[in-house]
Amino acid sequence: MKTYINPPKSTWSEILQRPGFSVVELKNQVQAILTEIKTDGIQALRKYTEKFDGVILGDLAVSPQEIEDAGNLVDPILKNAISIAAANIQKFHESQVPQTKRIETTTGVTCWQKAVAIDKVGLYVPGGSAPLFSTVLMLAIPAKIAGCREIVLCTPPDKDGRINPTILYAAQLVGVTQIFKLGGVQAIGAMAYGIDCVPKVNKIFGPGNQYVMAAKQLVSISDVAIDMPAGPSEVAVMADSTANPAFIAADLLSQAEHGPDSQVVLVTNDHSLIEKVVLELSRQLKELPRKSIAEKALANSQAIVLDRVEEMIELINGYASEHLIIAMENYSDVSQKIINAGSVFLGNYTPESAGDYASGTNHTLPTNGWTRSFSGVNLDSYLKKITFQEITCEGIQNLGPVIETMAAAELLYAHKNAVTLRLEEIRRKQ
Amino acid sequence: MKTYINPPKSTWSEILQRPGFSVVELKNQVQAILTEIKTDGIQALRKYTEKFDGVILGDLAVSPQEIEDAGNLVDPILKNAISIAAANIQKFHESQVPQTKRIETTTGVTCWQKAVAIDKVGLYVPGGSAPLFSTVLMLAIPAKIAGCREIVLCTPPDKDGRINPTILYAAQLVGVTQIFKLGGVQAIGAMAYGIDCVPKVNKIFGPGNQYVMAAKQLVSISDVAIDMPAGPSEVAVMADSTANPAFIAADLLSQAEHGPDSQVVLVTNDHSLIEKVVLELSRQLKELPRKSIAEKALANSQAIVLDRVEEMIELINGYASEHLIIAMENYSDVSQKIINAGSVFLGNYTPESAGDYASGTNHTLPTNGWTRSFSGVNLDSYLKKITFQEITCEGIQNLGPVIETMAAAELLYAHKNAVTLRLEEIRRKQ
Repeated sequence: MKTYINPPKSTWSEILQRPGFSVVELKNQVQAILTEIKTDGIQALRKYTEKFDGVILGDLAVSPQEIEDAGNLVDPILKNAISIAAANIQKFHESQVPQTKRIETTTGVTCWQKAVAIDKVGLYVPGGSAPLFSTVLMLAIPAKIAGCREIVLCTPPDKDGRINPTILYAAQLVGVTQIFKLGGVQAIGAMAYGIDCVPKVNKIFGPGNQYVMAAKQLVSISDVAIDMPAGPSEVAVMADSTANPAFIAADLLSQAEHGPDSQVVLVTNDHSLIEKVVLELSRQLKELPRKSIAEKALANSQAIVLDRVEEMIELINGYASEHLIIAMENYSDVSQKIINAGSVFLGNYTPESAGDYASGTNHTLPTNGWTRSFSGVNLDSYLKKITFQEITCEGIQNLGPVIETMAAAELLYAHKNAVTLRLEEIRRKQ
Repeated sequence: MKTYINPPKSTWSEILQRPGFSVVELKNQVQAILTEIKTDGIQALRKYTEKFDGVILGDLAVSPQEIEDAGNLVDPILKNAISIAAANIQKFHESQVPQTKRIETTTGVTCWQKAVAIDKVGLYVPGGSAPLFSTVLMLAIPAKIAGCREIVLCTPPDKDGRINPTILYAAQLVGVTQIFKLGGVQAIGAMAYGIDCVPKVNKIFGPGNQYVMAAKQLVSISDVAIDMPAGPSEVAVMADSTANPAFIAADLLSQAEHGPDSQVVLVTNDHSLIEKVVLELSRQLKELPRKSIAEKALANSQAIVLDRVEEMIELINGYASEHLIIAMENYSDVSQKIINAGSVFLGNYTPESAGDYASGTNHTLPTNGWTRSFSGVNLDSYLKKITFQEITCEGIQNLGPVIETMAAAELLYAHKNAVTLRLEEIRRKQ
């Protein structure tokens, strides 16, 4: 970690510059694959699956038998853990169900907003070194609560054409309706266009590498909505002298082990803390299977001392971190002033990994500074809010003249006339 | 209008094909302007304002004097209408303020979601033939309720370098913090990158033509969030024998007068209704100043008879209209089955123009089928929801083993260790 002691404000954004993550350079390459998928359909999906996943695909769809077999392969202790995590995620996302409120804005004019599920959603779960069944829970549970009719999941097959059994087990547990053996750009293209047995969905969710992200952004221009832009994972820790250096080191390492491009930032008002954390980092690193990945991530990371808590808060809001741990005595006060963050972990006994798996909050969060304008995945992500209005004869008599005046001032006389005709008819009937 | 009697379901999507609206072909052209704005800054803004708006810009920012002068130019009757509309929009959007609920998912594990305003928002109000001050109300009022700190508005100047006074009046009334004389791609580029005195915002809102839309989508890839994709405006009307043909014609025309590419669709189970509506259309068209625009839009539009109400609903949900009028006796039952629409108008006395101006609902809505996955602008559009979690010693003892099991199964041992260290420390202290 690079250390900075009270760096002047003018240098903050440079110090906190994220590792390059740009989809711009990949756009042409990814667009070419997407176009080929749109044109050649299943053939292109097979071609790129062979190329990128190293397997010649049989059926795209995972069969009921494969799902049943998977259930028998998962350790009962893990099954139990998954069911506890799923229950917490369920409970927290159920608490987000919006209520419809009817508002009479003018006498006789009633308006309301109704939340309706997005009909078909597509979930992407990356492959790679770790079987991310937790992402299945995070993406599918709110989809089910929202009432999405079709919940489609794509995840890449291994070299034998199989999907990790825990991913299949989690998917059937939480109500995914169809699972396909597709990864990368192939998965995004198939769900965006509807290819072969893969249905065209209305919105695509889930994390992925730069290629997946580029594909999601490209299909979002004309074909399908997406959850959010994303980049490599990141955590910021705010700590004071009451923080535990071993806990902080462990939290920084949980982020760092995600990938060499992960970023971790430590901000503290305690000058002596950084040294203790660095010592703990080297001690804990030794034991980690993913040591070399974590080391690379740490090399790009920052430890910053700022004497004033207000400055710590300002820097953290400017950085707009995906995950934020506040290990400070007065974490409650500090947390009230946080305006840019994805998910916030309060106090010494709230590790980021709690939110990654089981506290109940969602772990699919905006990165790369997008917490300035995006929420993490939550129940709302699977809902649209349709507005309704119902106006009585009395209502249009009350509000009609206002509409007529405004429409005329905007030179939209047909808009005005739609009111005038109704008011005339009411007058005639009276 | 083209008329179809009980068309088979297989033909619906072809019948309802929207007029072409593609930003794909414009992308290179618009990207070139955006790149020039990013590189040359204010010079590029001046160059393109001269080219597209026909005026050599003095100050980009509207001065306090211009705003004060504008207030004196607006008719008091219009001012009164605007204040009533603004109050209704305020009341309806205030009803959308979310409540924070703290949920204990496991004993000692508390999670909550907190809505926080997006700090800086940019609003775009198009120029053109009509001064769209109503869009100022629709975009700025929820921004103010949400608590956005900076509310920036861009709208193109006329050939004399001036902004329509009603737009300026509405902007200051509802709390816009800065107004700039910029239109089209220039406005979007300036707010996305922060050029000269125009601040870089976190999210851009508002309607616009194909160039504006292309610019919004391009800057949304790396720089700034946007409200939604959009295309030409559209309305669908569901009507039965209780509907009033004159009202329907007036409503169809209020949509058609927006632009030659507007689309209007009428679906009814009453065979005789279409003829009556067509007669009314030609009668009302004669009186309209924007007759030639409305005629062009109507030429691309459809009237469809479907005998069964369930089929009408299915077709309407498939079309996924921006505006939907339900002029049917049992509109309440029918409306419960609508899953894809932006804003819905119920009964014979609820014209679309009520929602365009003054009922309280927002008129910035997804078009081009995007209501399948997007909400219209609403309070949420200006908020991010940050999740928080607070875990006690008891909480981590309860949930820790679950996290450890799942992290180990995902081969993320640093994630596991962040829990293990905490559990060990608690055991040592006991």
